Amino acid sequence: MAETIGFIGLGIMGKPMAKNLIKAGHSLVIYNRTQSKTEELVSMGADLKNSPKEVSANASIIITIVSDSPEVESVILGKNGIIEGIKEDSVVIDMSSISPITTLKIAKELDQRGVSLFDAPVSGGEVGAMEGTLSIMVGGDGVIYKRIEPVLMAMGKSVVRVGEVGAGGFTKLSNQIIVAGALQSISEAMVLAKKAGVDMQLVYQAIKGGMAGGRTLDMKIPAFVDGKFKPGFKMDLHIKDLKNALLAGKSLGVALPSTGLIHELFSACSAQGEGQKDHSVIFQILEQLSGLK
Amino acid sequence: MAETIGFIGLGIMGKPMAKNLIKAGHSLVIYNRTQSKTEELVSMGADLKNSPKEVSANASIIITIVSDSPEVESVILGKNGIIEGIKEDSVVIDMSSISPITTLKIAKELDQRGVSLFDAPVSGGEVGAMEGTLSIMVGGDGVIYKRIEPVLMAMGKSVVRVGEVGAGGFTKLSNQIIVAGALQSISEAMVLAKKAGVDMQLVYQAIKGGMAGGRTLDMKIPAFVDGKFKPGFKMDLHIKDLKNALLAGKSLGVALPSTGLIHELFSACSAQGEGQKDHSVIFQILEQLSGLK
Repeated sequence: MAETIGFIGLGIMGKPMAKNLIKAGHSLVIYNRTQSKTEELVSMGADLKNSPKEVSANASIIITIVSDSPEVESVILGKNGIIEGIKEDSVVIDMSSISPITTLKIAKELDQRGVSLFDAPVSGGEVGAMEGTLSIMVGGDGVIYKRIEPVLMAMGKSVVRVGEVGAGGFTKLSNQIIVAGALQSISEAMVLAKKAGVDMQLVYQAIKGGMAGGRTLDMKIPAFVDGKFKPGFKMDLHIKDLKNALLAGKSLGVALPSTGLIHELFSACSAQGEGQKDHSVIFQILEQLSGLK
Repeated sequence: MAETIGFIGLGIMGKPMAKNLIKAGHSLVIYNRTQSKTEELVSMGADLKNSPKEVSANASIIITIVSDSPEVESVILGKNGIIEGIKEDSVVIDMSSISPITTLKIAKELDQRGVSLFDAPVSGGEVGAMEGTLSIMVGGDGVIYKRIEPVLMAMGKSVVRVGEVGAGGFTKLSNQIIVAGALQSISEAMVLAKKAGVDMQLVYQAIKGGMAGGRTLDMKIPAFVDGKFKPGFKMDLHIKDLKNALLAGKSLGVALPSTGLIHELFSACSAQGEGQKDHSVIFQILEQLSGLK
């Protein structure tokens, strides 16, 4: 029988991921701050515990997926946290999208208890989480990786070990920097076309087959044309990721001039109360700046 | 027999494009500032003239492809320019990548002589020009377009009429804004990964299938990994395109904050004497800024 897995954080992403683990035959020991979100999993056979500490005392692989760096730190290192219950030779897999600087700090603490940390952030959104088609970027020990790979494969389609612990988070940040840059430049390009009176769909048709072609362009053009920005991926989450990228850059001494500017422009969406919309809503801010709204 | 075409500007792009027109059965009347570049075409049967004026007096469709807005203006409206020899009902197709604001100004002048202007900039580079696989973005009158479409099809694979005159240029600028944004954000993402000690090839493998995926990422990663920036598309030409995008933005009242910053960063490449390298050389500047060079 498959290994017993601890799972902490049953939000929009975590809940469908946990369900896929149960479907793959794993026994689950779970915890969530908001208990109402655990009911469906309990009905599927998951064992609900009262704290991260209780989860880690009853599983040898513990997955966390919560909102940001402070929450991960609290769940793993805090009072009644994972570190208080965990046994030697256990593995913690943090699948949250957080600062890899925090990841490295937590890894050091866990290592002193004989526990390995992996960072394994995902991309692919709620749909990918439900369908088990996430892309998972994994950082951590190469030998122990073989033990957790089948667990990750139950939740994702593309699982790539990119290096030691922290590498998963850096890869996710790289991904988010690239997607943000694409959204920003596509928005500027399309606002220029729109104000010049050129049909955005025709611009898209003319350029999609060349160097400008890519998945963000393909996916977001409909939102620009219709002016509807239904998530998808919420702007506030992308702002969080860019903030973590800038913090990581500062910590390592990496200059991210364009990412810095885009973080500020994305933040303007949030300031205008649009943070819960899809991140393509940046297009609307640029329309405003250009007198189109 | 196919229509006689005037062709002015036999540079890296123009010369192979003109050859494809001859191969498609067109008679060519040609002019180039540097006469040595006309020899091969003359040996293929092209009729060399002494000025743009002489070309336009001997052809009813005249194609121009020169370096930037002032050169196009000079070739069409200047002394011994196209406008001095051209007959009514002729068509001028400018395939240069220039400011669409200049295009609109020239279109007005030609219109007073009963001559239609099309702007039809291309993407796909020297290889696309040689193989006849360019993407051509066309702006101009919808009825007259039918007359020039077969001529354009002899040079390109994707020919899309995006609107009235000027629309081709705006579409090309949109394309260049998007490619610049992609290059900049991919460079920042990869410098962050590199300085964090994560293998750039593995980052690429992990993210290429998701929202970050695209043609610029696929094409430029090898240059980043090898540190070789052989053109391809020269940085100085991309700087020219971004300059034209910013001028167009200023003229229309469109805010292009990120494009403005990227123009400045790209210009730093040129200031360092790297303007003749591939535009992916921006990666090297970001490495320097981050203490990696």
